[in-house]
Amino acid sequence: MGRRNLSAPVLDPERIVRLEADRVVLLDQRRLPAEEVEVECRTAAEVAAAIRAMVVRGAPAIGVAAAYGYALAVASGEDPAEADRVLRSSRPTAVNLGWALDRMGEDASFGAARRLHADEVDRCRRMAAHAAELFAPGTRALTHCNAGGLATGGYGSAVGALIAAWERGLLAHVWVDETRPLLQGARLTAWELEAAGIPQSVIADSAAASFMAAGEVDLVVAGADRIAANGDTANKVGTYGLAVLARHHEIPFAIVAPTSTVDLLTATGADIPIEERDPAEITARFPARNPAFDVTPAHLIGAIVTEAGVHRPPFDVTLREAVDG
Amino acid sequence: MGRRNLSAPVLDPERIVRLEADRVVLLDQRRLPAEEVEVECRTAAEVAAAIRAMVVRGAPAIGVAAAYGYALAVASGEDPAEADRVLRSSRPTAVNLGWALDRMGEDASFGAARRLHADEVDRCRRMAAHAAELFAPGTRALTHCNAGGLATGGYGSAVGALIAAWERGLLAHVWVDETRPLLQGARLTAWELEAAGIPQSVIADSAAASFMAAGEVDLVVAGADRIAANGDTANKVGTYGLAVLARHHEIPFAIVAPTSTVDLLTATGADIPIEERDPAEITARFPARNPAFDVTPAHLIGAIVTEAGVHRPPFDVTLREAVDG
Repeated sequence: MGRRNLSAPVLDPERIVRLEADRVVLLDQRRLPAEEVEVECRTAAEVAAAIRAMVVRGAPAIGVAAAYGYALAVASGEDPAEADRVLRSSRPTAVNLGWALDRMGEDASFGAARRLHADEVDRCRRMAAHAAELFAPGTRALTHCNAGGLATGGYGSAVGALIAAWERGLLAHVWVDETRPLLQGARLTAWELEAAGIPQSVIADSAAASFMAAGEVDLVVAGADRIAANGDTANKVGTYGLAVLARHHEIPFAIVAPTSTVDLLTATGADIPIEERDPAEITARFPARNPAFDVTPAHLIGAIVTEAGVHRPPFDVTLREAVDG
Repeated sequence: MGRRNLSAPVLDPERIVRLEADRVVLLDQRRLPAEEVEVECRTAAEVAAAIRAMVVRGAPAIGVAAAYGYALAVASGEDPAEADRVLRSSRPTAVNLGWALDRMGEDASFGAARRLHADEVDRCRRMAAHAAELFAPGTRALTHCNAGGLATGGYGSAVGALIAAWERGLLAHVWVDETRPLLQGARLTAWELEAAGIPQSVIADSAAASFMAAGEVDLVVAGADRIAANGDTANKVGTYGLAVLARHHEIPFAIVAPTSTVDLLTATGADIPIEERDPAEITARFPARNPAFDVTPAHLIGAIVTEAGVHRPPFDVTLREAVDG
């Protein structure tokens, strides 16, 4: 498979999340791909509610939304401490909320918030270029949930890596885990890959093992909601199981995420809070349990790719270098 | 936890599938648990269509339905060879269709078909009693799909084992994989466990690994659509992944299925045809792949329980003894 010289179309970051004079405008990810509807938020509380309801989701994207919400709140005379509190507590697992709000504490201007957004997208493009080295010609990659432009505010982390590999002629096919219960794979990743013209098959999450056993998966790539200092990685529930299955089938397993996702203050995955969402997302008829994330231990991860490069074990050393870099 | 002296209510086999003078009546499993609706079939072709559409599903149950359909067809003057052909080819993976029709070839009377049904339920009760020895007091078991009374024509295989363990005071909780794409776990197994009064939590299929890692799963039990002579077992897609995850977490993994599911003429799992169903069951919007079953290799299975007892490796020896017994 030769180089395609093909520039895959990607989502305009402004379509995903943007700051206007008196509002934060979010593309409602709950309603994709059926319809493109925007949600307008005029206060920090409205942005926090939209984050909690998953109008916008994905660790970097909720960080961007929180930064916009904070800048808007400060500009419109809300109490900054209260705006920070309500946004910071909107979801517990991703570290990017706190990271973005810490940055906004230094400069809460609209310009600073927009630079934070542009930086996040720029980091995605750099990490995707690094991640391309994980692909060989003809790679059939499997991904879980949506680590695309929708999740990062533009371009994407794991999906960005797929786009970069596709543009370099290294990607043959993507297996897309549908990702229950909210189907971010079947709804959002598939939508982004279709727009980029990348061949794909959506599969039931539980079918991933079969395609691995059949020798049809060469690489697993996923994003991250928080990466602990030792490399343990919280991501959408199901990621951990994929890492175990990948190890069993001797398939490389890689995390692609910006350094804004790395939390050096969290020592290991045991210290990452795991959000448990409404059981009704699974079934409203019977008792259910609905953890939204899981933790993949560092020893099951072959590479963590950030905008600083491709990091290998020992992650406690290489991640610190990447962040402090 | 003491013995409960508690007899769990179980589904009447006649409610699941029955033969009347001029029709086969099936409880429409596609519409459970929302409503209990019956589908009436008056020809072998109608029974075959109902099997294909999964009005009735589960290897032993479709064998019973096919036996009833064949007896009805013969009694009403249909061509027996054509009735056999259309029923036998209605679904490819389960061996029970062929097994039941082979038995009906000897005696196609209504009485023979009803005895086959009663025998299947009787086998379930016997295998459940054997399977109870896999449980210790306080066991938290995980199951996938529906290997309940709905799947066997009464009482159930893996769910029968759970009921027997519950009645003996050995079962603390059941984790129910929702089982995408058709949600047989969240719809059917949860419905049966609720009726039996057994504590349960439905989970996303991809969350099973998290609960295993948290030490909250003591045993995995699943049914089977076909067991090859060497013990390789075809069952609902996702079963294989659970077996790999169970092995990684050092959790016992057991198959509970009647000897009618064991196919000594199929040497290994590689010889079992895997049905691929309509991709629209996954998503109608994007390309998808939808294998309905997977194969768990014998080396990942700790025990196979049939009505003849608890069989351990080497399965090529112990299964032959169980069947030829």
